[in-house]
Amino acid sequence: MLVSTRNPLNIGAAARAMANFGFARLRVVNPYDLAYREARSAVGAAPLLQAAEECASVAAALGDCRLAIGTTSVGHRGLQHPIRRLEYGARLIKRALADAPVALLFGSEKFGLTNDELSHCHWLMRIPTVDADLSMNLGQAVALCLYELARDGKAAQARPGKVRPATAAEIEQITLMLMETLDRSGYINPVTGASTEEKIRRLVRRLGIVARDAPVLLGMLRQILWKLEK
Amino acid sequence: MLVSTRNPLNIGAAARAMANFGFARLRVVNPYDLAYREARSAVGAAPLLQAAEECASVAAALGDCRLAIGTTSVGHRGLQHPIRRLEYGARLIKRALADAPVALLFGSEKFGLTNDELSHCHWLMRIPTVDADLSMNLGQAVALCLYELARDGKAAQARPGKVRPATAAEIEQITLMLMETLDRSGYINPVTGASTEEKIRRLVRRLGIVARDAPVLLGMLRQILWKLEK
Repeated sequence: MLVSTRNPLNIGAAARAMANFGFARLRVVNPYDLAYREARSAVGAAPLLQAAEECASVAAALGDCRLAIGTTSVGHRGLQHPIRRLEYGARLIKRALADAPVALLFGSEKFGLTNDELSHCHWLMRIPTVDADLSMNLGQAVALCLYELARDGKAAQARPGKVRPATAAEIEQITLMLMETLDRSGYINPVTGASTEEKIRRLVRRLGIVARDAPVLLGMLRQILWKLEK
Repeated sequence: MLVSTRNPLNIGAAARAMANFGFARLRVVNPYDLAYREARSAVGAAPLLQAAEECASVAAALGDCRLAIGTTSVGHRGLQHPIRRLEYGARLIKRALADAPVALLFGSEKFGLTNDELSHCHWLMRIPTVDADLSMNLGQAVALCLYELARDGKAAQARPGKVRPATAAEIEQITLMLMETLDRSGYINPVTGASTEEKIRRLVRRLGIVARDAPVLLGMLRQILWKLEK
């Protein structure tokens, strides 16, 4: 829910973030009229903004919601509400969303939510920025809150799409061909040859060659070798 | 690192998000000249944008970095890099940051990073949006990546600033005064009085009254009672 938003770009950015993270119901309270109309006509934001409901007051906009959360940058006033960090607050909201609609309120760019608007909220949520005095851009704040709500904690653990490393046989084939190439180039000193070969073998293993690259590297070496033999 | 950014608002928004989450070194490659100058003169963005370095190419901008990560919305081209979700990628970046500077690349608003620019990257990171075809706003994408890097996983577990509930004694005092008020108002039927009192007692406990509110509620009831007694 956007309350008293002034900048059409911010209304558009909020709608875009909602589309990005799969949220559909936007309510707009007391928008700066021109800004709202401008945002509605912006390219791309079409379906979500067309379906947005314009409400006369926060109370009216909260209607069917069972939980109302205000967002704040804190710092600038004695807040009478419990304040939760985004990471924790989003967890509570996700749990509550299973039962009933939850409203997330964003205030005006300049002043945030007024004390009257805040009094409709059950608690407040703040984005953990470094400097509490430097407020966030409204569109970015909306994006962060929705991202955290859509965030998949398990994805941080998993290792999706891991790259398949080359097999030992492929690595050894590359090693041998590299040694032959170096030998033909005069790089390998016959006296210290054995220890040099071990160094090369270890070096090739440190490269972390992936399966896909093995034939490419072999092809390169084969070509160099062919040229050296000519 | 912002590559070929066209919109001054986006350069400003990226700088603001950096300040919000405690990142200091912005490099700008091949910006749309006018946009860059406009962004630099914008209010608020001053210190970070003034210190931003303008580089001639991605290679030059990467200079001292040991790891380069490209950001992408995927979907629109056959990418030759491993792609990691933001949640997982940010974990890898945090680990790498302990050793050496890491570069995070953002491409132009319209086309993202070109294949040439991408080839300088070790791997790619994508923001897990619902619809891969609907790209994200650049300023919002920067904010999300930096937020995830600054995110404190433990904060999602903790319960900071928990509200102190009222004591049993306070709750019972409120219960008794409410019963007396209801009694004087003729709400309690003398025949069913006992069961009604139990219902009231349970109801008051369900309210979850916090310590701070107990004296306020008692004061309200005391005033109502005083008026009823007159």
